[in-house]
Amino acid sequence: MPEAPRDVAHILIEDVHPSVDAGRWPAKRIAGRPCGVEAAILRDGHVNLRAVLLWRRADVEAWSEAPFACVEPGLDRWRGEFPLAAPGAHLFAIRAWTDLYGTWLDDLRRRVESGLQVRSEALEGAALLDRVAAGASGGDAGALKAASARLKGAADRPADALAAAADPALRKVVDRLQPRDDEVTTAPLRVYADRARALVGAWYELFPRSQGAVPGRASTLREAERRFPDLKKMGFDVLYLPPIHPIGTTHRKGKNNSLTAKPGEPGSPWAIGSPAGGHDAVAPELGTLRDFDHFVAEAARHGMEIALDFALQCSPDHPWVKTHPEWFYRRPDGSIKYAENPPKKYEDIYPLNFDSEDRAGLFKEIRRVLQVWIDHGVKIFRVDNPHTKPPGFWEWLIADIQAKHPDVLFLAEAFTRPPMMKALGKLGYTQSYTYFAWRTGKAELTAYLEELSRPPASEYFRPNFFINTPDILPKILVDGGRPAFRQRLVLAATLSPSYGIYSGYELNENAAIPHQAFPDDVEYADSEKYEIRVRDWDAPGNIKDLVARLNAIRRENPALQELSNLRFLTTSDDQLLAYVKRSGGNTLLVVVNLDVHRVREGMVDVPGAAIGLDEGAPYVVRDLLTDARYPWGGRNYVRLDPAVEPAHVFRVERPS
Amino acid sequence: MPEAPRDVAHILIEDVHPSVDAGRWPAKRIAGRPCGVEAAILRDGHVNLRAVLLWRRADVEAWSEAPFACVEPGLDRWRGEFPLAAPGAHLFAIRAWTDLYGTWLDDLRRRVESGLQVRSEALEGAALLDRVAAGASGGDAGALKAASARLKGAADRPADALAAAADPALRKVVDRLQPRDDEVTTAPLRVYADRARALVGAWYELFPRSQGAVPGRASTLREAERRFPDLKKMGFDVLYLPPIHPIGTTHRKGKNNSLTAKPGEPGSPWAIGSPAGGHDAVAPELGTLRDFDHFVAEAARHGMEIALDFALQCSPDHPWVKTHPEWFYRRPDGSIKYAENPPKKYEDIYPLNFDSEDRAGLFKEIRRVLQVWIDHGVKIFRVDNPHTKPPGFWEWLIADIQAKHPDVLFLAEAFTRPPMMKALGKLGYTQSYTYFAWRTGKAELTAYLEELSRPPASEYFRPNFFINTPDILPKILVDGGRPAFRQRLVLAATLSPSYGIYSGYELNENAAIPHQAFPDDVEYADSEKYEIRVRDWDAPGNIKDLVARLNAIRRENPALQELSNLRFLTTSDDQLLAYVKRSGGNTLLVVVNLDVHRVREGMVDVPGAAIGLDEGAPYVVRDLLTDARYPWGGRNYVRLDPAVEPAHVFRVERPS
Repeated sequence: MPEAPRDVAHILIEDVHPSVDAGRWPAKRIAGRPCGVEAAILRDGHVNLRAVLLWRRADVEAWSEAPFACVEPGLDRWRGEFPLAAPGAHLFAIRAWTDLYGTWLDDLRRRVESGLQVRSEALEGAALLDRVAAGASGGDAGALKAASARLKGAADRPADALAAAADPALRKVVDRLQPRDDEVTTAPLRVYADRARALVGAWYELFPRSQGAVPGRASTLREAERRFPDLKKMGFDVLYLPPIHPIGTTHRKGKNNSLTAKPGEPGSPWAIGSPAGGHDAVAPELGTLRDFDHFVAEAARHGMEIALDFALQCSPDHPWVKTHPEWFYRRPDGSIKYAENPPKKYEDIYPLNFDSEDRAGLFKEIRRVLQVWIDHGVKIFRVDNPHTKPPGFWEWLIADIQAKHPDVLFLAEAFTRPPMMKALGKLGYTQSYTYFAWRTGKAELTAYLEELSRPPASEYFRPNFFINTPDILPKILVDGGRPAFRQRLVLAATLSPSYGIYSGYELNENAAIPHQAFPDDVEYADSEKYEIRVRDWDAPGNIKDLVARLNAIRRENPALQELSNLRFLTTSDDQLLAYVKRSGGNTLLVVVNLDVHRVREGMVDVPGAAIGLDEGAPYVVRDLLTDARYPWGGRNYVRLDPAVEPAHVFRVERPS
Repeated sequence: MPEAPRDVAHILIEDVHPSVDAGRWPAKRIAGRPCGVEAAILRDGHVNLRAVLLWRRADVEAWSEAPFACVEPGLDRWRGEFPLAAPGAHLFAIRAWTDLYGTWLDDLRRRVESGLQVRSEALEGAALLDRVAAGASGGDAGALKAASARLKGAADRPADALAAAADPALRKVVDRLQPRDDEVTTAPLRVYADRARALVGAWYELFPRSQGAVPGRASTLREAERRFPDLKKMGFDVLYLPPIHPIGTTHRKGKNNSLTAKPGEPGSPWAIGSPAGGHDAVAPELGTLRDFDHFVAEAARHGMEIALDFALQCSPDHPWVKTHPEWFYRRPDGSIKYAENPPKKYEDIYPLNFDSEDRAGLFKEIRRVLQVWIDHGVKIFRVDNPHTKPPGFWEWLIADIQAKHPDVLFLAEAFTRPPMMKALGKLGYTQSYTYFAWRTGKAELTAYLEELSRPPASEYFRPNFFINTPDILPKILVDGGRPAFRQRLVLAATLSPSYGIYSGYELNENAAIPHQAFPDDVEYADSEKYEIRVRDWDAPGNIKDLVARLNAIRRENPALQELSNLRFLTTSDDQLLAYVKRSGGNTLLVVVNLDVHRVREGMVDVPGAAIGLDEGAPYVVRDLLTDARYPWGGRNYVRLDPAVEPAHVFRVERPS
């Protein structure tokens, strides 16, 4: 027969939150707000427990302690929180132990209150105090021994014994010094605290070269700054730039992705690298690094920070091709392979070989490039196609950057199968592009948002609801025109704390051609990826006022700055989508007509609990888009004409 | 700058099932059925993966391999299964790697099919084969080298090159021998395979001493055997006996839990131990160990196995009190403490001290006691109050027993807060008592069953729906009488694969007194725990026919032998509970009137998917209780009079 175990666990700590895959990955939180922690702590028998929340920054060795208290005894539920004072990686653990003295004291109290004699119990308590005293020194030891003596002396006088034992000063000493019997500590769990922009932001994407007024000539970064007042008026927080690096000429793509560029065609910014430089350089037609610094500073003055594209691929003219041919895939004859998906060839692009023999050199150089841009004020990187690079590479790179620069954010531009989308969030990506652009129906929007806004996904995957991108022109925008642009804008801006548009959206641009890769889909005609566009940014029919209004509403209403507070409501029409977001006293109630062609009307059910009012209590909603006010209750009539207003964005106001 | 990592992971294995707390605890399965395993396997890039399921019995060192294949490419979902040939602890892991040759071959095929030249690719393939050959020997090495040469030779003839590369015999050799690039293996996860009785069984609890015909005289085990034909007729699988050990006389409890027993009163079987023996002995009034052996054998002959109570507590007369006073809690004066919950005293019971200095000796003795009963044919232990003993003790004890006797089952009799109930399942308990006895409303029954029948709970917590116990007389039985007994019987027998009744249930016994511990509750009057009862087992109004019918239905319908197949249906009445259980071609559809006083009628919605038929397709249901047949469809009228039939237990039959 095997030996009986020397120690057997009395205490179990179960169901700890937050936890992503039992601590394998960090949960995401925002710095400046405490991190709430919950767990079930259980033990056999009727015994008092104590627990403490241990926490530390990953870069600090010493653990700190925070209170951890039972908040729901019927469920053995304990809770505490620790500060996330600044961005960075944090660890926490829960430690619990048996409160011997407290258990004994509660027992003593029940006996005394029941009129029982307590001589035996008092002697037990004195022995407990002696045991604590044996591990104490100085004044503590003296106080404990004295208390023990008092307790023994009062052993035959129950009320006196209880008074001596329950003395608050004594309890403090005991709590501090008594041996932590049955102590257990969970394995450490991980939390990453980001700055607030990781969660909330309105993004705008533009090609700097297309901000001029002269057809066919690239505008410089300096010239592109002329858009800043307009963007500020629209209320954007982040200005995202496609690659600004020198563009290769070998196999340069022409207009509409044609295989050969005509003279003067500018090429795709994603074909990075030319004799003028690689990933750490600014394309000469855009200006210099000093111009970039100016651009960053001016953007900041207009309330925006810059997000830079980070696309790990090279044109055949990239300096690395000459200096480090070993970083690329090579054929048996020694030539470098371009990107291919047979029979398709992408001869303007060389992929990097992350299994290169000189992998260490390649990684070091990539790390250096990021540092260059960080040193020039870039704190957000929108990473191109991260799902085509090794997961382990991102885990290393992001952790390494954030160890030094915990306020740097990474947005994953992956449109691939769900497990990889999610894995990128676990690996360290701050935010992720999503399937939102293709989710237009009520059931699919509801299901997708419920998945994203709740654990487990919400613990590590932060959506950024880009409505369009240079690569994505959703069909609903082509079919639905301006009403669709307005409807999708309301959805993105009110469903997700982070959302974005690619420039031209505000002008309802939707000229489409059949998609070259996906026959059932469409893409932008005359894509800005391959040519310089000139636009009338004040063209008739533009929806800039709605953009500005929505971004202002987002700033003024904390409820729109969270995702986990989303709750869908029942409506009587399958094209009316209604949802509530509530944060403290701020409650928004949004109703959107998903039908871009027809008027829809129906009833919206609003349970009192969803808006923090008594069931059936009347209230007033104010439409923040139109300023109209309506008296509402539990069941409410709504009529939305897509030609007039795509949605109501109500704020709930109590009747005055 | 920290060093770049030498290796970076390409492959992630995510979302592995089954898994309880990331492998901390075993998932529960049934021996004789393979264990299905699922995971998402992902990798960067467009690359072929291979994977294998590794598994072994915990007591066998060598790992076996089973196929693991991609079953849903759009979700990166892989699946496999491994055999659970016999009860016992098992481990599994998933190993995945990059299929270099397969990836290269698919690329080659696309090129050849697109009419491209493949000279360079053929040379690459030959190099791959050479690399495999370098690690091979004998005939394999020769075959690989020859294939490499053929491929080189055909490099300028695409079709020939493809034919040479795709040769099935070659692929088999390559699959077997090629280096497993990027190989990753998950941490091992745990599965415990139980024998079938762990999942499915109808239990009957009786006090052997109360099976006689002479009031006041204990029936012996031999005499109690007279009940076996009746129990067999009712169709029970497990006969559970309260403790059969000698009962102490010191502070023996009398009728209705009175503090002093009158002469001749038999005492509570849970006050274990007297000069006649302790936990390893049979009470003299019941017979001898040989009688017990006879009882076990006779029960088996009637299709039942014995479950024995295992209550780790002692009467003051237990032999351990003399031989091992150090196993008990002692007062400062050296006397042994009885159980107490001040001001209440339980002087007839001494609790064991699991933190005793001689813990090893105590554990060894407990282990020995269990072995005694296992050696006498007991393979099921119903453990009394496990939540009052250390969790780590159970984890050790159950694992130690099951390492030698993997077919031994443990039922946890804990009625305490939810986290401990669940933890006992994780710690190793095969089955658990539940809150079912107190769940009588539609919403609470639905919520509780949905929790129990789905992961995570269903992976480690197996309910046994005892409807009543000597300690639990549910109010609905007191208020509702016979109709309530019939309704609760249908619910327990059809909702849960394991359920049980305590004898007297079939006679609708519900004489109640106010509960001594819980003022709002009731308990059995003249509880059998403290006195010997004599009953007329054929008393008028008994529901033995319904018991027999339901147990026969359970045996004949595999759908009732599972829990995870439970699906609730929508009904138009808040007292009509409807659910489907489906297993292969066997579909049961149960409708229960939860109102024990009134007729209820309403509509039951049956989605086609719930019963495996096309939406709207007609079908016939046959009531297995009455043999009546009805044509049914998507929406169906039901009327149930509790005075006539509490429920329909339909089997779905296709129209002939």
